[in-house]
Amino acid sequence: MATDLEIARAATLLPIGEIAARAGIPDDALIPYGKTKAKIDLGFAVAGGAKRGKLVLVTGISPTPAGEGKTTTTIGLGDALNALGTRTMICLREPSLGPCFGVKGGATGGGRAQVAPMEDINLHFTGDFHAITSANNLAAAMLDNHLYWGNELGIDPRRVTWRRAMDMNDRNLRNMVLGLGGAAQGVPREDGFDITVASEVMAVFCLAKDLPDLQARLGRMILATTRDGRSVTAADIKADGAMAALLRDALAPNLVQTLEGSPALVHGGPFANIAHGCNSVVATRLGLSLADVVVTEAGFGADLGAEKFLDIKCRSAGLAPDACVIVATIRALKMHGGVAKADLGREDVAALKAGMVNLVRHVENMGKFGLPVVVALNAFTTDTPAEVAVVQQAMAALGAEAVLCTHWADGAAGAAELARAVQRRLAAGEARFHPLYDIRLPLAEKLDVIAREIYHAAEVQMPPAVAARLQRFEEQGFREVPVCVAKTQYSFSADATKLGAPSGHVLPVREVRLSAGAGFVVAVCGEIMTMPGLPRRPAAEGIGLDAEGRIDGLF
Amino acid sequence: MATDLEIARAATLLPIGEIAARAGIPDDALIPYGKTKAKIDLGFAVAGGAKRGKLVLVTGISPTPAGEGKTTTTIGLGDALNALGTRTMICLREPSLGPCFGVKGGATGGGRAQVAPMEDINLHFTGDFHAITSANNLAAAMLDNHLYWGNELGIDPRRVTWRRAMDMNDRNLRNMVLGLGGAAQGVPREDGFDITVASEVMAVFCLAKDLPDLQARLGRMILATTRDGRSVTAADIKADGAMAALLRDALAPNLVQTLEGSPALVHGGPFANIAHGCNSVVATRLGLSLADVVVTEAGFGADLGAEKFLDIKCRSAGLAPDACVIVATIRALKMHGGVAKADLGREDVAALKAGMVNLVRHVENMGKFGLPVVVALNAFTTDTPAEVAVVQQAMAALGAEAVLCTHWADGAAGAAELARAVQRRLAAGEARFHPLYDIRLPLAEKLDVIAREIYHAAEVQMPPAVAARLQRFEEQGFREVPVCVAKTQYSFSADATKLGAPSGHVLPVREVRLSAGAGFVVAVCGEIMTMPGLPRRPAAEGIGLDAEGRIDGLF
Repeated sequence: MATDLEIARAATLLPIGEIAARAGIPDDALIPYGKTKAKIDLGFAVAGGAKRGKLVLVTGISPTPAGEGKTTTTIGLGDALNALGTRTMICLREPSLGPCFGVKGGATGGGRAQVAPMEDINLHFTGDFHAITSANNLAAAMLDNHLYWGNELGIDPRRVTWRRAMDMNDRNLRNMVLGLGGAAQGVPREDGFDITVASEVMAVFCLAKDLPDLQARLGRMILATTRDGRSVTAADIKADGAMAALLRDALAPNLVQTLEGSPALVHGGPFANIAHGCNSVVATRLGLSLADVVVTEAGFGADLGAEKFLDIKCRSAGLAPDACVIVATIRALKMHGGVAKADLGREDVAALKAGMVNLVRHVENMGKFGLPVVVALNAFTTDTPAEVAVVQQAMAALGAEAVLCTHWADGAAGAAELARAVQRRLAAGEARFHPLYDIRLPLAEKLDVIAREIYHAAEVQMPPAVAARLQRFEEQGFREVPVCVAKTQYSFSADATKLGAPSGHVLPVREVRLSAGAGFVVAVCGEIMTMPGLPRRPAAEGIGLDAEGRIDGLF
Repeated sequence: MATDLEIARAATLLPIGEIAARAGIPDDALIPYGKTKAKIDLGFAVAGGAKRGKLVLVTGISPTPAGEGKTTTTIGLGDALNALGTRTMICLREPSLGPCFGVKGGATGGGRAQVAPMEDINLHFTGDFHAITSANNLAAAMLDNHLYWGNELGIDPRRVTWRRAMDMNDRNLRNMVLGLGGAAQGVPREDGFDITVASEVMAVFCLAKDLPDLQARLGRMILATTRDGRSVTAADIKADGAMAALLRDALAPNLVQTLEGSPALVHGGPFANIAHGCNSVVATRLGLSLADVVVTEAGFGADLGAEKFLDIKCRSAGLAPDACVIVATIRALKMHGGVAKADLGREDVAALKAGMVNLVRHVENMGKFGLPVVVALNAFTTDTPAEVAVVQQAMAALGAEAVLCTHWADGAAGAAELARAVQRRLAAGEARFHPLYDIRLPLAEKLDVIAREIYHAAEVQMPPAVAARLQRFEEQGFREVPVCVAKTQYSFSADATKLGAPSGHVLPVREVRLSAGAGFVVAVCGEIMTMPGLPRRPAAEGIGLDAEGRIDGLF
């Protein structure tokens, strides 16, 4: 069987101008980056036409090491819809360089459901993440420079909350003392680097509607606190203009194609823990103005990714999704039912039935947002007919069709049935989308609604100091903002080992952070990783150029 | 009078395909990045045709705060040669982001002698510097990861010489202790960031002939020393392949245009102190295969920039320049004659005559490489006819024509006379280029030749430990490499305050470093700055977007 890389290399890509024409993008709005990538002129992108498309979110069950294939399914579904004659745009996140060099694997789909050119998208692409890194670090440099030249604003160097960023997995950068070497070399203080996707600049970039909104959000970002407790923003140190200048070109969405020639907008990629984990508002809106259907994805499982997509991104951007696809695999559901990864190759109907609770709860949860659900059962060769029947019967009982998909092996044809199921849901017009909670609720109550309704927790616990901090955010004017939960993606609870569908647990909030530019409060539940490390044998060791100068080792 | 920015914005740029066609680049070798920038396919660039062009180096007198205009003159001369019907390619360095946000000013020329699009070239351009930053920092992350996972190679964490990089002026990153926070967070050690242009990756990138040479040079770079004194290279930690993959697309040269429609390759930009300070070998060679004349520039004054261009780049790449243009201004020469900057507006023939020693020595020095010289006297409105006559008469006495140029105000027409002078020198075929020293000399003797012949120093002094280190480099197999001197650019001596043409001084070598990938030994004379800081009022504070989304404040 051909590998992902072989399939990608065997594909003949169309000139990007042809893809743009198919998508309804006029030639003068196309800014080519090479022959098979382009940016779409930002003026054209934000002017948009009237929204014409329906919005389909692809989300998943709680992730397991067995793999689910959310990106692959997003691509396969988009290809299948296009093949059926529904003009469809795929909207994805840009991959981060860090994971490419860490654990083996790019983020451009797989098999016959890939976006291309794979190497470009996985590495520098059109430079958006580099622009975000630069903007983040310019603010840091200007802040430290302000401290160095007399600190007119009275910033407390111990209370600088702004961290530097790098698009790299590099644990040695997590905690440092910098500014060492004497009076001419800066101001000594504690600092650290986050991976670029965890930067608030990334979240702001993905939520901004246009350039003025981008600059306003950048200006509102809080970098530090003064000795007398006032917040110091990027605007206070006059960094917002130059940051916006650095991000100007990046804000134009990127157009690429799938191996089957569907247009795909791949733009933005915020972390799904400390931020909201979905592609840019600019790209999604552009897609909706051009296509009849936009298929997009959100990070992690539906409890985290879809909830944030719906409560943060859709609310902020005024988007109303029309349907939701939940991706599951029989292998992963068996893990939720207690099977170890090594034993997934054997039929195990009992374990599968036990693990179905995870999928069932995600399906029910999506109903709480008023969304019709289709389950995409991403096929593996080890799946048995009896196992497939278990999933389909359980879903039918919930009124949610489960469709077996083989787009990894078969491309669009393998997702045709899924596409028809989605079409039926869209045609039925069943969606009555509403966010989960009223934005006017106090922050703690919003968190409470998410914990009870989505995680099935019995209660939220937070130390008095954390509760007081939430109170202070509200006094500062940040009451009517959504809450972005940072917790493990592996469980509905805050305990990564509790698979299936735990209930009655406690959600412990360790810390809260205000992302004033992005416009949300982050509730940190448990450990939060904002700078990954490399494994003992990083994928980077196997990456290199072959004799023809092609890049090996990215898959 | 129109500002640089107004002139740049008023210009109508041609589609980059048209510029490529003028330059003789076939359409299928053009990789567009937007409408007015492109990369040239690396296969086409390195295959080249036979060298057909003559190579003209633009260099300068010792720089002063009065400004000389080397880049502007390189562009003006290229435009003028093209206007006269000589098919000319301009080869420039890419600007660094750091200085853009620090002291006001981009690096794309000025007045009517600019390359465009100015904002793009000054900011992210085609992402080359970001790729170099990523490659540099991937090596650092892999090295620290090696330490973290057991340190099989036995690296001494105190002897890691590889520093991280960022394309930013940020003094707080110069010296740090990272890897803090406990056993799971890395290995604590001292580290620091250099600005990207000071990274050895940048030097390697600019000296590499093609991808295999790039990867081989990356692999040879020394990152650290083991406890028992062995060098640890990038190949030892298996970082070279992934670094080459990150740099693959960047190695393709960038094509842009001048405001008058001349083609310009803007590619690479190593620091002129710790590295050799000129654009990429790939771009220069491509230019020579396409054009009848290539005009290029080197950093700092001719004592540093031209010397390294000739002894390092030309030697390594097998290039033989045909003529040399030395840029001078009457203002700067008066500063070399003792006039303060505030008093430069007044005629002062005596001071000018005194300052001429600086120009005279640079002209004589270039003769030591067998190169004919033309002096470009870059006109200012305050220059008087008597002053111009002083320069022209002194140069005529040396057999070196001095030509008054007004390309800043007049574009190509203002450099037409300069272009004709260069044409005459090229037609006369007077160049008998040879490097200054025999590469087989011991390292200390090579340094001695540069110090005596170029700087007119009486002697080179180095502590015994430094001399022993040079000896050790030779034992390691790095004897037949050139020496890259890092010293102040403001004086022929190591003392920045000694303007004019000091003689008989001592050149103190404080430290020597081996750049095994770039293929040279750096002799550090005096302070060396590899991470600049921002000024009290950084230019970044004035940079921003105007109502039409254009970038203000970059000039």
